Amino acid sequence: MTATITLTTDFGTRDSYVAQLKGVLLQLGPAALRIVDLSHEIGAQNVREAAFFLRCAVPRFAPGTVHLAIVDPGVGSARRALVAEARGQYLIGPDNGIFGWLLDAGAHVHALTATPQSAPGGSVSSTFHGRDVFAPAAARLARGEALAVFGPRVVDPVRLAWPQPVRSGARTSGEVVHVDRFGNLISNIERDALPAGPSWVSLGAEPIGPLRDHYAEVGQGALLALIGSEGLLEVAVRDGSAAVVMGVGVGAKVEVETKSPAGT
Amino acid sequence: MTATITLTTDFGTRDSYVAQLKGVLLQLGPAALRIVDLSHEIGAQNVREAAFFLRCAVPRFAPGTVHLAIVDPGVGSARRALVAEARGQYLIGPDNGIFGWLLDAGAHVHALTATPQSAPGGSVSSTFHGRDVFAPAAARLARGEALAVFGPRVVDPVRLAWPQPVRSGARTSGEVVHVDRFGNLISNIERDALPAGPSWVSLGAEPIGPLRDHYAEVGQGALLALIGSEGLLEVAVRDGSAAVVMGVGVGAKVEVETKSPAGT
Amino acid sequence: MTATITLTTDFGTRDSYVAQLKGVLLQLGPAALRIVDLSHEIGAQNVREAAFFLRCAVPRFAPGTVHLAIVDPGVGSARRALVAEARGQYLIGPDNGIFGWLLDAGAHVHALTATPQSAPGGSVSSTFHGRDVFAPAAARLARGEALAVFGPRVVDPVRLAWPQPVRSGARTSGEVVHVDRFGNLISNIERDALPAGPSWVSLGAEPIGPLRDHYAEVGQGALLALIGSEGLLEVAVRDGSAAVVMGVGVGAKVEVETKSPAGT
Repeated sequence: MTATITLTTDFGTRDSYVAQLKGVLLQLGPAALRIVDLSHEIGAQNVREAAFFLRCAVPRFAPGTVHLAIVDPGVGSARRALVAEARGQYLIGPDNGIFGWLLDAGAHVHALTATPQSAPGGSVSSTFHGRDVFAPAAARLARGEALAVFGPRVVDPVRLAWPQPVRSGARTSGEVVHVDRFGNLISNIERDALPAGPSWVSLGAEPIGPLRDHYAEVGQGALLALIGSEGLLEVAVRDGSAAVVMGVGVGAKVEVETKSPAGT
Repeated sequence: MTATITLTTDFGTRDSYVAQLKGVLLQLGPAALRIVDLSHEIGAQNVREAAFFLRCAVPRFAPGTVHLAIVDPGVGSARRALVAEARGQYLIGPDNGIFGWLLDAGAHVHALTATPQSAPGGSVSSTFHGRDVFAPAAARLARGEALAVFGPRVVDPVRLAWPQPVRSGARTSGEVVHVDRFGNLISNIERDALPAGPSWVSLGAEPIGPLRDHYAEVGQGALLALIGSEGLLEVAVRDGSAAVVMGVGVGAKVEVETKSPAGT
Repeated sequence: MTATITLTTDFGTRDSYVAQLKGVLLQLGPAALRIVDLSHEIGAQNVREAAFFLRCAVPRFAPGTVHLAIVDPGVGSARRALVAEARGQYLIGPDNGIFGWLLDAGAHVHALTATPQSAPGGSVSSTFHGRDVFAPAAARLARGEALAVFGPRVVDPVRLAWPQPVRSGARTSGEVVHVDRFGNLISNIERDALPAGPSWVSLGAEPIGPLRDHYAEVGQGALLALIGSEGLLEVAVRDGSAAVVMGVGVGAKVEVETKSPAGT
């Protein structure tokens, strides 16, 4: 059977860091190994951006997949490293919150206590744990080794608080948590958290309009609010960039006013 | 046998959209699946750029390859989705012209009428057809399902007119249709469309010189015209950027004056 | 057994050049072929940057791997093309120094004398040797063909001189040879070339401090010098960019003053 290891890093590909990871994985992993690039363009040392990325991406993969994620500003410090199993998939990376939105109560989390090692032909360093600690361990996970062999159980992995929207009567207040390549402003307001009934959205002081189902409900260049592909309310411009048009980004306030269906 | 699905999108890789596609393909596709990234850097919502990209790339692949291409400004509108077979390869994407230069008369084109679906563990949305409509269908194509199961025959897919150069006596007039990373100005003038005989090229009012065979026929930094790797006339600067040197881009006029071989 | 071909180019992925390479490799290579992207973001026509990249990446891969590397400003000129075997791995690309730091005395180097050819369905050009010369040959290497079938032995491949640091008594003088995505300034001073004993580092006229083991030995935003993941001395800023803070790049002078352990 083919094992799959995915890669999510902030390394870019102009440097050789990702290439080195891949070499180590292919040397130490199972013979039938599929390496799948998720992203190497996470903002440099932006753990929170990586955590949001993984929150969206990981649930789409099959049980048994190994996800290696390295955005690691604390490399070389005392920060722990983790291997974990959550909903049948495996996660491996620094214990800095990068998996903070995936490690739910049912997850099995262990410390990764290995000393840096090299694949044949290579040297070892104290600064590139991605290559010398995480990749060898990911290769072993993909070969089927159990979590417990990597280190002791961890009960307090770093978790990230999901910024909860605040609901007050008919009003739900949240904020932009991600701006995507198309300039869509993605908020922390989940579809399921909204009261039933027609909703009216504003962004800061700016009225956006009713909550829509499709981009095509408004004309080209018009602003709209809809539930995006993650089930989160987003503000968009049809065939344009809401981030550019509105001049705002992460942290901007979003408000939804919902009329009860009975019109009371 | 290993099935191959290629990906061409305008998603970039800083967001998780490509990662999500890959997860769905791996969950729903055949066990021995090879995912091949072609590009995620197509200009945002630039269907014409994607169409030129695919016109160059697809013919290089083997029969049986499935090409999933998503540059889809009309997602959520009434635009159709397509699955097609052209010269033994499979194409799947929105019906917006993205395959406009590949769907020749012999192509078999069907509508893709599936309702959005999710892979195990995921949710469904009305805004991300790439993940919820196209990827599941591409996985089924890669498993060997027939075109007809996806929807009815389509006889009028959106085609793009290739901007034909104009020939008037010894003069052939065309335009720049693509500028590549190196600043090469690629025109719509095909080698085979030129009359026989030595040719002289100009770009707008600027004389470039005779049509060359190799970059190395001119000195470093010099302008030249030659037939590029797609069989199209291009204007280049040896070890430099013609786009920068000439200050022009897509749409710039290119003219070729051909002397008949007999010198008449 | 699965064959592996890695790709290192300066093509970017907005153009279709990489996609075309992949199509040819999949058509002409062995059935069980794994294509591994190392980088397509090498600086345009920057052979030296590619050579440094490959010097770091290639040793991490397993014997039998085929590395196809194309940064080729001289395409179409009389520059030779090479196929080589070095430490059990295979290298294929232009003879312009791109493998200059990998072709040691024990390497077997042959000229690649093939005329351009196309995979089924494609045309041939005089400007895209990556697709029409190198990819078909890489596919044949991956199928197990011997070096000698590609052309005669080459005894004088283009090598690059590694800029040797200069040692004068307790003082070792070198220079920055690479700046990575994080702004780390990587020098040509190898750990093993330094005399034993505590070392003090400066960058140009600026004192940096003692040679450290870990980023975490200094505070956030502080400058430090340490031995990086390639065994080379580098100047870094913890959680920041030394290139930005110091305003320097490739070529900047680095000096190390080492006290002998006996304190003499």
